[in-house]
Amino acid sequence: MLIILKSEATQQQIDHLIERIEGLGLKAHLSQGTYRTVVGIIGDESQLAGTPLEAIPGVAQVIPVLPAYKLASLEAHPQPSVVNVGGVKIGGGHVGMIAGPCAVESYERMDAIAGAVRQAGANLLRGGAFKPRTSPYAFQGLEEEGLKILREVGDKHGLPVVTEVMDPRRVDLVHEYTDMFQIGARNMQNFVLLTAVGETRKPVLLKRGMSATVKDLLMSAEYILARGNPNVVLCERGVKSFDTDTRNLFDVAAVPLAHTLSHLPIFVDPSHATGRPDLVPACALAGLAAGADGVHIEVHDCPEKALSDGSQALLPSQYAELASQLRELAKLLGKQLSPAPQPARAKSGT
Amino acid sequence: MLIILKSEATQQQIDHLIERIEGLGLKAHLSQGTYRTVVGIIGDESQLAGTPLEAIPGVAQVIPVLPAYKLASLEAHPQPSVVNVGGVKIGGGHVGMIAGPCAVESYERMDAIAGAVRQAGANLLRGGAFKPRTSPYAFQGLEEEGLKILREVGDKHGLPVVTEVMDPRRVDLVHEYTDMFQIGARNMQNFVLLTAVGETRKPVLLKRGMSATVKDLLMSAEYILARGNPNVVLCERGVKSFDTDTRNLFDVAAVPLAHTLSHLPIFVDPSHATGRPDLVPACALAGLAAGADGVHIEVHDCPEKALSDGSQALLPSQYAELASQLRELAKLLGKQLSPAPQPARAKSGT
Amino acid sequence: MLIILKSEATQQQIDHLIERIEGLGLKAHLSQGTYRTVVGIIGDESQLAGTPLEAIPGVAQVIPVLPAYKLASLEAHPQPSVVNVGGVKIGGGHVGMIAGPCAVESYERMDAIAGAVRQAGANLLRGGAFKPRTSPYAFQGLEEEGLKILREVGDKHGLPVVTEVMDPRRVDLVHEYTDMFQIGARNMQNFVLLTAVGETRKPVLLKRGMSATVKDLLMSAEYILARGNPNVVLCERGVKSFDTDTRNLFDVAAVPLAHTLSHLPIFVDPSHATGRPDLVPACALAGLAAGADGVHIEVHDCPEKALSDGSQALLPSQYAELASQLRELAKLLGKQLSPAPQPARAKSGT
Amino acid sequence: MLIILKSEATQQQIDHLIERIEGLGLKAHLSQGTYRTVVGIIGDESQLAGTPLEAIPGVAQVIPVLPAYKLASLEAHPQPSVVNVGGVKIGGGHVGMIAGPCAVESYERMDAIAGAVRQAGANLLRGGAFKPRTSPYAFQGLEEEGLKILREVGDKHGLPVVTEVMDPRRVDLVHEYTDMFQIGARNMQNFVLLTAVGETRKPVLLKRGMSATVKDLLMSAEYILARGNPNVVLCERGVKSFDTDTRNLFDVAAVPLAHTLSHLPIFVDPSHATGRPDLVPACALAGLAAGADGVHIEVHDCPEKALSDGSQALLPSQYAELASQLRELAKLLGKQLSPAPQPARAKSGT
Repeated sequence: MLIILKSEATQQQIDHLIERIEGLGLKAHLSQGTYRTVVGIIGDESQLAGTPLEAIPGVAQVIPVLPAYKLASLEAHPQPSVVNVGGVKIGGGHVGMIAGPCAVESYERMDAIAGAVRQAGANLLRGGAFKPRTSPYAFQGLEEEGLKILREVGDKHGLPVVTEVMDPRRVDLVHEYTDMFQIGARNMQNFVLLTAVGETRKPVLLKRGMSATVKDLLMSAEYILARGNPNVVLCERGVKSFDTDTRNLFDVAAVPLAHTLSHLPIFVDPSHATGRPDLVPACALAGLAAGADGVHIEVHDCPEKALSDGSQALLPSQYAELASQLRELAKLLGKQLSPAPQPARAKSGT
Repeated sequence: MLIILKSEATQQQIDHLIERIEGLGLKAHLSQGTYRTVVGIIGDESQLAGTPLEAIPGVAQVIPVLPAYKLASLEAHPQPSVVNVGGVKIGGGHVGMIAGPCAVESYERMDAIAGAVRQAGANLLRGGAFKPRTSPYAFQGLEEEGLKILREVGDKHGLPVVTEVMDPRRVDLVHEYTDMFQIGARNMQNFVLLTAVGETRKPVLLKRGMSATVKDLLMSAEYILARGNPNVVLCERGVKSFDTDTRNLFDVAAVPLAHTLSHLPIFVDPSHATGRPDLVPACALAGLAAGADGVHIEVHDCPEKALSDGSQALLPSQYAELASQLRELAKLLGKQLSPAPQPARAKSGT
Repeated sequence: MLIILKSEATQQQIDHLIERIEGLGLKAHLSQGTYRTVVGIIGDESQLAGTPLEAIPGVAQVIPVLPAYKLASLEAHPQPSVVNVGGVKIGGGHVGMIAGPCAVESYERMDAIAGAVRQAGANLLRGGAFKPRTSPYAFQGLEEEGLKILREVGDKHGLPVVTEVMDPRRVDLVHEYTDMFQIGARNMQNFVLLTAVGETRKPVLLKRGMSATVKDLLMSAEYILARGNPNVVLCERGVKSFDTDTRNLFDVAAVPLAHTLSHLPIFVDPSHATGRPDLVPACALAGLAAGADGVHIEVHDCPEKALSDGSQALLPSQYAELASQLRELAKLLGKQLSPAPQPARAKSGT
Repeated sequence: MLIILKSEATQQQIDHLIERIEGLGLKAHLSQGTYRTVVGIIGDESQLAGTPLEAIPGVAQVIPVLPAYKLASLEAHPQPSVVNVGGVKIGGGHVGMIAGPCAVESYERMDAIAGAVRQAGANLLRGGAFKPRTSPYAFQGLEEEGLKILREVGDKHGLPVVTEVMDPRRVDLVHEYTDMFQIGARNMQNFVLLTAVGETRKPVLLKRGMSATVKDLLMSAEYILARGNPNVVLCERGVKSFDTDTRNLFDVAAVPLAHTLSHLPIFVDPSHATGRPDLVPACALAGLAAGADGVHIEVHDCPEKALSDGSQALLPSQYAELASQLRELAKLLGKQLSPAPQPARAKSGT
């Protein structure tokens, strides 16, 4: 931590600052410049979390030197983490392929889509049973019924499943059915929810908030890690911008940036990032080329009848074409799409 | 709702679109331009919430004509709403003055600050017992103990109290102690929390998310209103921007904009919007001049020892000076600071 | 300047860095923390402008301590500057009131508008003769003919005039007719144009670019000041944002922020900031309440026939009402609207 | 064009609106919804450029249906344009590789860098002779001397050259030396400069402004095209954002978006987009994967001594590795790096 003093800081203010720092068991190191005095803090900065050093008289600026996240940092874990989701590896050269509709709508629809995406190369199945809708009047999900369908269809097709949890009161319920929790962008800083999934050991797909920096995303990951759950996978899904021709702005540089800061794997979700199926394939390829550890795509067999976000979904045939290009690109990059587990054929008679 | 078709839309696609619209019990009105065909939808558009019209083949663009929020709209309630918080009126010319520390830290500190801000002209007391901290390692609040202190101090000084609720499991607990719930910016789209406070009849201070439009804010208000709680007060507290010399960008135009769209009162919170005490007074005055129905200011008697966000707090003396300017300005604008209730002198011996 | 080294920086890299700094005639001051080494640079940092210290091996981060602008800084000139525009004072308690149509359209229209705004309390007249239009097919201005009309009408009504210059080849021509150059937001970093107006001594109204920070704006002011022209007035006119219900996002906090950094006066332009006449009055009042040294408003007597930006203009009657409120507010703030010069009655027969 | 009326619009206002539209030689088509009336305009909308329809009483919203750019649109030219820069094809499957230092610094440095990047696979050489520096105190370029060096070195190595022009008074001079003009991001809406290069027939690399939408970029291209110069190449180089860990936010989706709207080729410039050499390779690959027609990279053989923007440059060896990956990726995508012309060996003795 570096503290830059105001040019007009008095000796008394400097003394008071040093006293405060030393009172916390740290050492202060004074450095007098021509125009400004700088105080370096030596010792375990974590004792300063939340101390409003800026409010101390005479202080102009406080500059953190170490990241505020620790467990998520590359320093803590210099090798890329590999997260195992129901047998599917993500990270360290293993590419996850999450596909499926926005919402679970019915067994038949889910079954048809799952069959198609598994065939195309997907290794994880998504579908929402609890939907965060901006309008209170829109379809809010099938709830537990949706979870059951998702689980059953996933098992049938050998696809571990990913579904969103929005309510800390439902973490146990969702835990029972899913292989991976999804924390949506709007809940990235819902700290009670982060804490709740952090208390499980189930993998978490943590989506970046629409105005969160990559470091903010890592701080949210830290909430989960700090509770003892190491299985966090980040996901870039677009940030807010002034160009409304795409729903959000797909920040592809977040992928290599996250890799310079953290050991956690990172997905890209071009479906939510762009909101436009005509741009999804190009952005999926871009994400993988930038180093993403997985690609999250919404797929629906009749987008115009989707109960949620239909307008951004790819058709199964479009997904198949894209998946084949992604496979080629992964090969070029020295990576591979993770194989999906064996389907539970016994259940296929359902 | 207007649907603009692609220039290459076929007759078959147009027929299919009209069939879909009429299948929902609505009427379609076709309008052939030189270059494009436009379909207007006549009838109750609310049946279309969530229908992905953009995904219907041949559709280029869908333009909503009516707002997606209804209860929050000015059409639904053409007069400004006046919300009563423990006897303090907000809206319709009555100006609320929320003041207090970021977090409740101790009875003594709270008592001292409350006394000072009440004297200066505040009519509502704030203080967090559950704190949404970006770092899991920072002070997270005194929890129920904090609620008790806040309640007791508020009663002593005749200041109804406002405190944040973050967890749907704690809504009942917080309800017991507070006069007004605060929903923080990070939870503006935490729909389970909005629903939970919507099921009470307690006033809610709903803060704008950092990348939410004013219409997004109104959609979140709609969640609360739709559950039957009409006592919503909006709050502008800055949006994300590229200029990092202020913590957020204070969107003062959100105040008159909200007033053109909605009957709900709107506060400004220059403390969180700017993060800088040296800019707070100017922005507070600007907010009131722009038509705000209340001003939310963080005040702490020793900012450098604050356990949360101390660096943005005003000193009680600075608050007193600002409050006096706000009172003069309110008068010029034909408004008045709402009087605070009588203190519960019986309890003053605590 | 502070240079934070990477945790893995070698002694050789540190030595090389120090050698580079000392090679520039500066002194390096080493400070060893627990985790990181920091090098402070002592001496005249301006020798480092443009030296890519970040590219030196081992360097993690470079933190400037002094502002990169000098002449524009409060350190250089601790008292607020007062700029005199044809006899109208701006800054230091003197409030400028610029009003007029977006573009000069005809003598008659200009004459009518000027008469109305002068009567309402404006003290400076605006009107564009060269218009920066985003479409090459839109009206581009009357050019020299427009300048002549503006000059004549300004003289007739006793209103010094402000008009935009876009082309360094036209600086001399515009200089001949105007009392104040306007540099538009799109040209805020058109450095050849800044240099050209910097070589005159004519006041310059420098509008903030749509994605410029306040410090970027001050750097652009520095270009003008560095050429010897001290008569710069800043203008906040909105920045880009994701909320498209207003054309731009009016950053009212830029006003007090600029005052903490610089001695230059700053205007607000709510017409361009919001693009909506229904929000202009509230934002104009907010700007003045926040400390602005002047208010820039577009006024047109028949907005629907305006050749440029008509949809954001106030009617003369709306302007008169607003100007009267601004006058009251200025009084409350201890400021006053600068009086306009005497009209040149001799010319009134034109 | 669609005009949505306010719910309270009177018959008189509707009549007046229709009169205005018909007065411009267009036809109005009225469509009465349940809640709102919509007027469609039939005929050549371009007559409406700049008419402030929003200012007509009773009008709520004006929705353009056709793009405001015409020559740049895909409708005008359904096949991708191929631009020829001194023999190097860009677009339609031909990939341009622009490389070189930010600024031309000396013949020797330029020669060394050019030799290295040509060998690695670059086909166009960049280098600035006039530099737009945010600080008036930073190195501003070698001016004509720089142009000469660039020309000579480009000829020696068989690399057509690209250099920025900032001043309409220097367009002729730069024209003499360069194969392609660059218009920098800060000048994207410098309409006098766009007009000036539009009057030549020399290719133009038009960089996207930091807060320009893709459609804004196309409007600026339209300025050049409308003057008769069809040789425009767009360039995505990052937009402003709140995440300051990268200099700008690299909007990779702009590439496929531009291709859905326009026939013009589009480059990506990850050097300026990220400002960080460690992120440049990943973003360059992402851009190509997203469909870019070329990649613009800053390369410097001693970044720490670069006179401009050294901290974002790749070393020649890093560039060589990246270029080889780009070549493989282009092959996978069915594209090819355009071959560079033969070097002018006769001049190699200089």
